[in-house]
Formats: sequence, structure tokens, C-alpha cells
Amino acid sequence: MTSQLHPDGTLRHLLTLEGLDRRFIEGLIERAQGYLRPRDSAPARSNALANVTVANLFFEPSTRTRASFELAAMRLGAEVISLDLHLSSRAKGESMLDTIHTLAAMGIDVFVVRDAGPGVPQFVAENLDSPTSVLNAGEAHLSHPTQGLLDAFTIIRHKGRLEGQVITIVGDIRHSRVARSAVQAFSTLGADDLRLVAPAELMPDAHEFAGCQRFEDLDAALPGADVVMMLRIQKERMTGADIPDAAAYFKRFGLSAERLGRARPDAMVMHPGPMNRGVEIAEDVADGRQSVIREQVTNGVALRMAVLEAVGGAIIRSRRPT
Amino acid sequence: MTSQLHPDGTLRHLLTLEGLDRRFIEGLIERAQGYLRPRDSAPARSNALANVTVANLFFEPSTRTRASFELAAMRLGAEVISLDLHLSSRAKGESMLDTIHTLAAMGIDVFVVRDAGPGVPQFVAENLDSPTSVLNAGEAHLSHPTQGLLDAFTIIRHKGRLEGQVITIVGDIRHSRVARSAVQAFSTLGADDLRLVAPAELMPDAHEFAGCQRFEDLDAALPGADVVMMLRIQKERMTGADIPDAAAYFKRFGLSAERLGRARPDAMVMHPGPMNRGVEIAEDVADGRQSVIREQVTNGVALRMAVLEAVGGAIIRSRRPT
Amino acid sequence: MTSQLHPDGTLRHLLTLEGLDRRFIEGLIERAQGYLRPRDSAPARSNALANVTVANLFFEPSTRTRASFELAAMRLGAEVISLDLHLSSRAKGESMLDTIHTLAAMGIDVFVVRDAGPGVPQFVAENLDSPTSVLNAGEAHLSHPTQGLLDAFTIIRHKGRLEGQVITIVGDIRHSRVARSAVQAFSTLGADDLRLVAPAELMPDAHEFAGCQRFEDLDAALPGADVVMMLRIQKERMTGADIPDAAAYFKRFGLSAERLGRARPDAMVMHPGPMNRGVEIAEDVADGRQSVIREQVTNGVALRMAVLEAVGGAIIRSRRPT
Repeated sequence: MTSQLHPDGTLRHLLTLEGLDRRFIEGLIERAQGYLRPRDSAPARSNALANVTVANLFFEPSTRTRASFELAAMRLGAEVISLDLHLSSRAKGESMLDTIHTLAAMGIDVFVVRDAGPGVPQFVAENLDSPTSVLNAGEAHLSHPTQGLLDAFTIIRHKGRLEGQVITIVGDIRHSRVARSAVQAFSTLGADDLRLVAPAELMPDAHEFAGCQRFEDLDAALPGADVVMMLRIQKERMTGADIPDAAAYFKRFGLSAERLGRARPDAMVMHPGPMNRGVEIAEDVADGRQSVIREQVTNGVALRMAVLEAVGGAIIRSRRPT
Repeated sequence: MTSQLHPDGTLRHLLTLEGLDRRFIEGLIERAQGYLRPRDSAPARSNALANVTVANLFFEPSTRTRASFELAAMRLGAEVISLDLHLSSRAKGESMLDTIHTLAAMGIDVFVVRDAGPGVPQFVAENLDSPTSVLNAGEAHLSHPTQGLLDAFTIIRHKGRLEGQVITIVGDIRHSRVARSAVQAFSTLGADDLRLVAPAELMPDAHEFAGCQRFEDLDAALPGADVVMMLRIQKERMTGADIPDAAAYFKRFGLSAERLGRARPDAMVMHPGPMNRGVEIAEDVADGRQSVIREQVTNGVALRMAVLEAVGGAIIRSRRPT
Repeated sequence: MTSQLHPDGTLRHLLTLEGLDRRFIEGLIERAQGYLRPRDSAPARSNALANVTVANLFFEPSTRTRASFELAAMRLGAEVISLDLHLSSRAKGESMLDTIHTLAAMGIDVFVVRDAGPGVPQFVAENLDSPTSVLNAGEAHLSHPTQGLLDAFTIIRHKGRLEGQVITIVGDIRHSRVARSAVQAFSTLGADDLRLVAPAELMPDAHEFAGCQRFEDLDAALPGADVVMMLRIQKERMTGADIPDAAAYFKRFGLSAERLGRARPDAMVMHPGPMNRGVEIAEDVADGRQSVIREQVTNGVALRMAVLEAVGGAIIRSRRPT
């Protein structure tokens, strides 16, 4: 596996949160903190990425994550191009590599890559010459590291730290890159009471999510929770889990106001979006006073600015003085 | 209905021209005037929208209007992102709202929205917190306010004023957002001889377009006309009006050079584009000396700069000093 | 045919390399040279195109060429918009013209046009008022002038000149715009030993490619070659040439390491991309020490900056002082 760090310990790629240590993650979050502004202010901007070229390569469509990365790069003064690539899976390996090399030869410094298949960001990173960087913007069911970091960042903003927090994650954990990256971030930062709630069919394999408690009953997993993180459920998955429809899913795994009452009174409600209102989360909870869902989005731009600045800094330092 | 104005009377949203008073519209047009440059000059530019983020949300494709808004925003120094969203109509209401909130949480200040369905810009505006703005870039058959303003602007450039002008609008008035917004603009600015020409089936309902004269015979509506505005006709509408083909349509409702001779010798020929040459307008008229069709496009960029500057100004003033 | 030059001899359009003289082409290549930077440096940038608006009009999709033009324009400080236009071929002529006129009326100064049909760039150029420019970014099987220039530029970087070089071009010459533009550039710059290798069915008509030798046997065309330029082969063409499959094509026309051994030891291997590895070129040759394929891409951005700067200069000089 390609190292995510340059020899001097700075960030080169962000492919996964696995293996990043606590101080490193805290450093990124601190940096993200510096990019937040009060609500009625102009967004933070800098020229940290002037002369750096960022390409968004979204092999899988995503309006939100793409806009978030695009805005983050623009606000740092980078040159940004976006390419919608629809490569057939058969041709992918080889022709993707040629595409990547071609773009690198044009002077692309940072590749933001999203793909429904596993291994793509890693594959791209392995094949690029230093100091070119790859940022994983969502990889199959495996990994979504900037989402995990922004979730940790959002909890820290409200609770001050991850240690001692009781965090309940609810939904299709088995197929969720969001859950995987969140649990990695939370664990690294010291969380030790992580609860996974899912129907048996959507529970991950036993060797995954070490140290997390597993529940099939949401009500049993809420008492004492400081954070309740709901995941998007897809219809096909519901059916696969023998749940006939959205109403039945909501009844068993949806977060209603009443149910939220079982958690701590100051419990934060999170969701990575896009939400299925009335399916995994009730309308009034999604928009309620405990919800930090929009704040997650705002924090996401700041966090991606921090990550881009980290990799861009190394790129700029690697250049010969002009 | 959400007010289009901030409490201090400045523009917050531009959803419709209905309810905007004469001085207000004149102010926007005057501002647009300031963004015109002589033909052999660099385009006008400013930094009026520095630190303002504009998103183009085109739920219905439109190369021209989108390019016009995009260039207008770029030339004011705004940060611009464009998103092609294809939301199914069923999911639209709820998921569009979440998309909008998500984008607002990323720091989007101005949403330029185009949609084939009615009520979308209004719906978005109702649900956004101040001072975020919505600009309607085309809404169903109902409204296309920047088009109405640029049409009025173009007439004023040539004729000095709307009062006393005889304006003949020809084509599928019933389904035309362009006609609706144009008539609102022209009426507010004092035009009082507005003539609508259409086959009976494409004439609007009786309660609409108050004060306009209606004609089924184009030749009867041209004498004395200072302005002849042709509308794009769609094949399906033709058939719906029992007109067998393009040649038959042109014969009854097309603007030939001969027919244009019935209007005043200095009559201006307008068309919002894209034209069906040979269907609603003859080639030689479209490109003739009385045509201001390309000028409408140029004026459109200036007018959209004026509108963006107006809403952007309020956004910038609302921010706390840094 | 519209002249590609302004009356003062500077470049207005780049539609084809036919008719451009040697000093002119050398001037563009020299200018491109000025935009190259050492590998570990920031890319070249300037403000040469500040206040110039460039539109990418790709009627045929192309990730690479589009990204190359887009980056070139951005790095010169131009305002860039990209439009994906999918016009039906029937409607093309007339409605394309209106689209072009509309975009010109918005202040687009340079149109970068790519189309699968013949004559489109020329057609657009004929219909635009001075000083607006058209750059051909790929036209049917006929012409791809910036590719021809970047290929010549790449050879000059390695060999110092075109005179005296033995250049072997291999593949579907008949349908290749790359081959046509390359041969025009190479011939104008003094190359006089150009060899075309193709199966008989993919050989161009006799009146084309004057002065080139023709071979059906690749091995016979390699001895003495200073440059071996491989072309992309399409499956349909293979079948049309009675070659059953990719393996059979590779056997007859693919560049293996062994075969490359027949050329001069310092022969350069070129390919315009995207490559079919294992079909027209072996993996180890594509990535081998004689390959300049990635360098072609890097040179392409510099060359396109040179062309954009050339046409942009005339646009800026034509404007009245502000």
C-alpha cells in the first residue's frame, strides 16, 4: 500500500483514515477550524493553492461532494477543472491509468477521485509520480475519509472531544463508506462507546468495526447517546433485509422525535445527506434544534480546504524557486 | 408570497416582474446601461461580486441563458459553480429543498434557477434564509423576468421609452414565459398599445394579459407597430393549433420582409432565440437591418450583471466587517 | 476559404495547417517553447488573455483535448466557459450558426470547436465578424492542427529540426486527422522522408499525402526511422480491413519492443492518445525509455497557450483604449 505521507510526515494522499494517527487527524481538524467563519461573514479565502491545479474526477455522480471540493479548491485560489468520466468497468484499469497520466502531464497536481468501485483512489495514487496527490472523495462501500473527518470535526465543535462520547450509528452499516470512515476517525480520536444499529442483514461482517457494540433494536442503543448518526437507506437494501417498505423501515430504524427522547437531552443528530425524510429520519428531527446536519455541510467545505491546503503545501514546497 | 425586496427596498430575489414598480425597473435598466461597452471594446468588468458565490441550477437545459448568467457572474468577479441537476419530478419538492439547503450551507449566496415546472424559484426563495438570493432564469410557461427586462432595455436603447410604443407580439403566447414577462415589463414602464397575435388555440386565457389587444390575423396587427417581437413556435403546439406544418405556420404567422413592411419603417424586430428560421421568422428579416436580435443577447449579459450586482450588494452589506 | 490570418499577418483562426508557411509555424513553436517549464516547477502563467473570453464548444466529446485547451486558456488568465452541445446533425448548420452568433454577442472572443463532421470550424469562422477567432480542436478525419503542431514541437525538442528526419506513421492513416495535420506540419518544416504504414484498406487515397512513401509491411518501414508515430485503431476499422482481432492487428501493425529495434536506436515513439495498449502499441514500448507520449501531452498545453496567445493578442490590439 502506497504511503499517504511524504517522507517528512506531511500529507501526500488522503485515501483512507486507516493508519493516520491521532495527532495528524487533530492537526487537520485544527486547520479546518481556521477556515470557519461566523454565519454572517464572507467565506474564508486564501491564496494557499495559487498555481496549484486540482481536477475533480468523478467516475460516479455526486452533486454535493463535488460542489464541496470545487468550492474548497476555488476558495484557496487553485485552478480547478471538473471532468465527468464514464469509463466502462472493463476498460477502467488501463484506460483510467492513461487518463490519469495524461492529466498529470498537463500539470494537474491534485486528483479528487470518486468511484463506485473499490481500490480506484489507491490505484491512481500508486501510479502517480511524487508530489502529485490523490484525495478519495468516496470509494465503493469502503471509504470516504473527508466525510469521516468532517463528522469528527462537527462533534468536536459541539462536545469538545471524542473521548467519552456515546455515538450511535444507525442504518445500512454494511454498505456504508460513511460509517466505516466515521468509526475510524472517532476511534482514532479516542471514542470508545460506539454503537452500530442495523437489521441483521445490513450488519457488517464480524471482523469489521472492531470494538463497536452491535444492536438490532434502535431503542436499546439510544440511552446515553451523545450523538445519533443516521445513514441513508436505499430501497433495494431494505428489501434485501426483508423490510417491506419505507414505513416499516421508519418504524424499526427511523429517528422520530419520540425516539430521540431516549438519547441524552443534548444529543446531536447527524446525517451525511442526502436524506430520505420520513424513511430514516423524521422531518421534525431533520430540521429540529438537535440537528447539526447543515452544519456538517459547512464544516465539510472547511475540512476539505484544510486537506487541500495540506497536500498543496507539499506540492508548492517541492517546486524549484522561480 | 415571499417579498422580492429586502426591508430597505433593495432587491433580494428576482422571481417575477409582477409587483416591481416602475422606478425600480428603471433603476435596474439604468444599472445595465452602465455595463454596456462599445462594440470594439473589452467587456465591462468589476469586482462588485468578489467573495460572492453564485450557483447555476438548471433543472432544464439551456445553453444560452446559462452562458449569459455565467459570464455575467464571472465578469463581476463572483465565484461561479454550475450544477446540472436532473431530479425526477416526484422527488423534486423534498429533495430539491435539501439540495438547496446543502448548497446554502456551503456558502452559496445566489441561486440562479431554471425549471420547466411552475413555482420552483418561489419555492426555493421561501425556504432560504436571508440574505441568500434566488434569480429566476426561466420558470415553466410563467415567467422569465431577466428576459422581460432585457427586452424592455433593448427597446429603450432604440426608442428612448416604452410610453407610446406600439408593440406586436406574435406566436405561441399561451405557453410563453417570454411574452408574460415582456408584457409585465412593458406595461409597468408605460406601454399601452400591446398587441398579441396567435392562432385561437395558442391565445392565453381571457383573464391574462389584461389591457392587450388580441388578433388572429398578423397583418391586421402590424400597422403602426414600433416593435415586432416574434416568439419561438414548437412543432407540437403548431399541430395542436391545427396548423399542418412549418410552411403553413410561416404563411399565417411568420414574419416575412413583405409583412414587416406593414409595420412602421423604423420598427424593431425582436426574438428571444433560439429562432426557427423560415418558420416564425424569415432568414432575411432575422439578419436584416431592423433586427435587434443579437443586440438583445448583448444587452442580456449587461442586464444580468445589473441584477446580480443588485442582489450581491445586499449580500455584501449584510456581512460583518472583517 | 476564409483566411486564417489578419491583414497584418498575425493569426486570426487556426483551422488547418495547410497554407501556413514555415516561418509562421516556427514562430508558434518558439512561442510554445517559452511556455515550457522544468518538471519540478509551477506551470507557466501569464495575463496575456486577461479580458479575453474563450468558449470550448465540443460537439464531439473529448476529455483530453478539452482539458488541454481549458488549462491553456486558464493559465493565460482568460475567462473560460465550456459548453457541451449536442446538436442533431440535421439541425446543425442553421442552429449552430445562431448559437455561435448568440455566443459572440455575449462577448465570446475565441471559439474552440471540435466536431465529428467536416467543415464545421471553417463554417463557424466564415460567419463570425473580425476579430473573433476559431480554433479547430479536431475536425472529422480531416484536421487537428494543434495536434500536428505539438507533434512537430515534440520532435524539434528532441531532434532539433524536422529536416532529414525519417518519420514512420503507422495505423489507420485513411481516417486519421492526426496523421493529416502531422504530415502537413512535418512537410512544411522540411521533413522529406515520411513513411505511411497501413493495411491497404486503411491507406489514404492516392492524391492525398503527396510525397510520402507507402508501406503495407511495418518491418520494411522502420529501418532508419528517427520517429515512429503510432495511431489509435478502432475495432470497426480493423474489421473493415479484414483483420479479425486485436491480436492479429498487433502482430501486423503493433509496435513491439522487438520491432522498435529495427528503427534507429534513438528513435522516438509517439502516440496522440488515447492508446490501445497491446493493440497498436506494446505496454513496455508505451512506457519505455524511447516513448515521448506523456511529453506530447505536456507540450500540447504549451502549444495551445502559444496559439491562444497569438489570436488573443490580435483581439486585444483591436480594442479601443479604455
